[in-house]
Amino acid sequence: MSFPLSFSQILELAEPFEVLGEVSPTIQRIAALEDADKSSLSFVNGRRFYPLLEDCAAGAILVPVDCSHSPSDGQVYIKVKNPSMALTTICARLESLQRNVPKPGVHPSAVIAGSAQIDETAAIGPLCVVEENAIIGPGAILEAGVFIGREVQIGSETRIYPKVSIMSDTKVGARCLIHPGVVLGADGFGYEPTPRGPLKIPQIGKVVLGDDIEIGANSTVDRARFGETRIGSLTKIDNLVQIGHNVKIGQACILCAQVGIGGSTTIEDGVMIGGQAGFAGHSTVRKGARIGAQSGIMEEIPAGQTVGGSPSMPQLLNHKIHLLSKQLPSLFRRVKTLEEQISEEGQN
Amino acid sequence: MSFPLSFSQILELAEPFEVLGEVSPTIQRIAALEDADKSSLSFVNGRRFYPLLEDCAAGAILVPVDCSHSPSDGQVYIKVKNPSMALTTICARLESLQRNVPKPGVHPSAVIAGSAQIDETAAIGPLCVVEENAIIGPGAILEAGVFIGREVQIGSETRIYPKVSIMSDTKVGARCLIHPGVVLGADGFGYEPTPRGPLKIPQIGKVVLGDDIEIGANSTVDRARFGETRIGSLTKIDNLVQIGHNVKIGQACILCAQVGIGGSTTIEDGVMIGGQAGFAGHSTVRKGARIGAQSGIMEEIPAGQTVGGSPSMPQLLNHKIHLLSKQLPSLFRRVKTLEEQISEEGQN
Amino acid sequence: MSFPLSFSQILELAEPFEVLGEVSPTIQRIAALEDADKSSLSFVNGRRFYPLLEDCAAGAILVPVDCSHSPSDGQVYIKVKNPSMALTTICARLESLQRNVPKPGVHPSAVIAGSAQIDETAAIGPLCVVEENAIIGPGAILEAGVFIGREVQIGSETRIYPKVSIMSDTKVGARCLIHPGVVLGADGFGYEPTPRGPLKIPQIGKVVLGDDIEIGANSTVDRARFGETRIGSLTKIDNLVQIGHNVKIGQACILCAQVGIGGSTTIEDGVMIGGQAGFAGHSTVRKGARIGAQSGIMEEIPAGQTVGGSPSMPQLLNHKIHLLSKQLPSLFRRVKTLEEQISEEGQN
Repeated sequence: MSFPLSFSQILELAEPFEVLGEVSPTIQRIAALEDADKSSLSFVNGRRFYPLLEDCAAGAILVPVDCSHSPSDGQVYIKVKNPSMALTTICARLESLQRNVPKPGVHPSAVIAGSAQIDETAAIGPLCVVEENAIIGPGAILEAGVFIGREVQIGSETRIYPKVSIMSDTKVGARCLIHPGVVLGADGFGYEPTPRGPLKIPQIGKVVLGDDIEIGANSTVDRARFGETRIGSLTKIDNLVQIGHNVKIGQACILCAQVGIGGSTTIEDGVMIGGQAGFAGHSTVRKGARIGAQSGIMEEIPAGQTVGGSPSMPQLLNHKIHLLSKQLPSLFRRVKTLEEQISEEGQN
Repeated sequence: MSFPLSFSQILELAEPFEVLGEVSPTIQRIAALEDADKSSLSFVNGRRFYPLLEDCAAGAILVPVDCSHSPSDGQVYIKVKNPSMALTTICARLESLQRNVPKPGVHPSAVIAGSAQIDETAAIGPLCVVEENAIIGPGAILEAGVFIGREVQIGSETRIYPKVSIMSDTKVGARCLIHPGVVLGADGFGYEPTPRGPLKIPQIGKVVLGDDIEIGANSTVDRARFGETRIGSLTKIDNLVQIGHNVKIGQACILCAQVGIGGSTTIEDGVMIGGQAGFAGHSTVRKGARIGAQSGIMEEIPAGQTVGGSPSMPQLLNHKIHLLSKQLPSLFRRVKTLEEQISEEGQN
Repeated sequence: MSFPLSFSQILELAEPFEVLGEVSPTIQRIAALEDADKSSLSFVNGRRFYPLLEDCAAGAILVPVDCSHSPSDGQVYIKVKNPSMALTTICARLESLQRNVPKPGVHPSAVIAGSAQIDETAAIGPLCVVEENAIIGPGAILEAGVFIGREVQIGSETRIYPKVSIMSDTKVGARCLIHPGVVLGADGFGYEPTPRGPLKIPQIGKVVLGDDIEIGANSTVDRARFGETRIGSLTKIDNLVQIGHNVKIGQACILCAQVGIGGSTTIEDGVMIGGQAGFAGHSTVRKGARIGAQSGIMEEIPAGQTVGGSPSMPQLLNHKIHLLSKQLPSLFRRVKTLEEQISEEGQN
């Protein structure tokens, strides 16, 4: 596929402060600094990548305004406020030109209940199943093999990728992206202990998602025991994440891959969570806190705090303890030496 | 949907010792203490929630027999032995009234091998695939898009949610719940190292599940290298859990989300495992042990022991070491002070 | 199903140095030493299993050449260089005799785009979807319910199990095994922070897999932000593993279950990674390094190094620190004693 943007279109999208270099390269692809060739557009994603500029063969490079390097012969520097954001703008245009958008309508192989309401501008892909009383909003896209349970509501312009299962009563807002294999609204995990073994606690609540949410491939969000498991608008969730029943997640949070959140936990707005972090049930994370990768959260985390470790503690203390741990072998030797010195003194 | 239980039906299910309050509220929903309004039934799930009783607006609250609080005007307290269990009984009735049970029969869009045996009381949903010689028992339910491989056996009244893959030769017992996206019987993970790279060890065994098992969304259970990977009756497994080949899990175990169990590990009856815990291959956990969240198990855990940490140790020791770790900065300072004192003494 | 190999066929495949025992047992199954009976073939997978030989009832046992134990009455020892490898050879034959290989052709229930190119020796199972311009190579097998996006290329003799989603532009090499529920080519996880919340960074790259790769059930590999996420030939990946965007993995690596690899990380050839290990974005692991289970990798790991812990350190140091940690309670007591002794001396 030929690259659909000319160099002048790229410049227009980048809104540069200044352009250095005499040429007008023909761009064929976007590439990292170390992978780029003459037909590549590249970008500098922070000062630590400046050393890579010297040998970079890219035809054009998005660089920060204050970058003091100069382009080589036949190369162009496009000086912008934020190279990563400029590239995002260019790539968004590329994506809109290249990515397939299915046409409205229902594929004949889909199995749709008579009582389901599907907006005429929605697109329902092959081999989808939509059950009784489900509502699919305007411009929504269901790719191949999506399952939509009874009474589910899908907001406008939400895109649901192949093989997603959205169980009964779930509500999904507008402009969400739900990636392949996601499961929304499976039963929460709860049992009463009895002499004959664990007795299932019915899970009769639901899952409610706000707008502009993204959920990564094969992640799972459980329905509530009763009431709602809620995810706030603009929250972004990576792959293979587990959200337990009755969890409440605020707006504009970031959850990296393989995070696990135990039941009835509350995560307030703007929280960032590193990969593989785990949360005990009924824990609370206040606004804007940052949770390190692989942390274990068991109590309340104050607003704005950065924590790490399992069980978690403030990240600075966690780093300090990690560094001191590495000195434990010498500390044990030092204490032994002290004991010997004291003992010798006692004998003198 | 209107709430299908009257207040007197709720009382009948709760089997109360005593009812405090003059009114007979119209219940419309079930809600947590802090979310409840006049038309809500709520419950006290342990003494630590007593402080929430004062401002709780619920129309009716399930409270323990020995609770000394009193209902406010227009409110009812329903005194029961175990509020959580009473609520479970009420919710089970609600669920049986509300949740959809598919009618027996095979959906015309399903693809069923001629040699498959499907009980006439079983329900096979749209776009299912059932391969050669599979046996689907009485009252079993396959929701939309389930894959059943060759020679698979599904026990009576087992319910399999959408997009589950059950690979050839797997046996599933009676009354199991298999949530969306689960994979049973994919190949175990084993290779012989050779000079030309890893050589696949064939995985020609199977997966065998007992009765009354629940497996959470997108969890995976691998087939054995040879023989069987086994899960005992009444064991409950949460979402995104990985069970390796030739693992044996006993009866009535609880495995929380994102647990990973390496090949050939044995977990005896009644073991409880916290989220994200990991088990090395060939490890053993004896009856009734409790494994903390995020633990790493590398050796044999004795019966009844509670462990935590990675690598794991007895939980009390683990907690103690965690607390002492936080005092490492002061310990290093104290040792430095001692060294200086000794050194000064030596100079005197 | 009756066992399809005679004892003499088994001997032929095992290529024994020597056979001890007078009998020629009828083998019906393969079993571990402790589960074996007269009709079982078993094997000794290392010296630590020698104690199990005494009570083993197996009809025939593959043992190492230098094993000094002797068979009991009516039992045969088959002495080979590498019992596990010999069993692998036997099981590979069994598998080739038993496992179902679908016949070439497209199942009538599959939905295939007119522009897709499907080799006439490929087998496309029921309810598959193959989109525009996809290419399915000779001898490739798509089991039931596989989704193949636009412009995807599947190499020859690659087998794709049920409910796999392979998103647009992905390239899969020859002789790969892709297990159920795998997602290749979903969007990478990247956002620009803005005052109105996180702004999605378009993910317009692709996923490229080499040859002879295996990917376990429900694992996910994200497409690149731009360029390629790459996995090298002969690399083997277990279940529920997450590979972020723009990751490069070399040849013949082993990734155990639930590993998570952050974006733009590089893993060179021959690296072995234990279960649940996590990698920060932009980290590097050099050739042949070994990463312990549950490790956290945040910096560059040198070639051949074995590391463990989170954050990771050389495994020997990690073990040493773990052992010393368990002695922290006594260390704190010893320092207290020293302080008291010094204080007493000062008072004298």
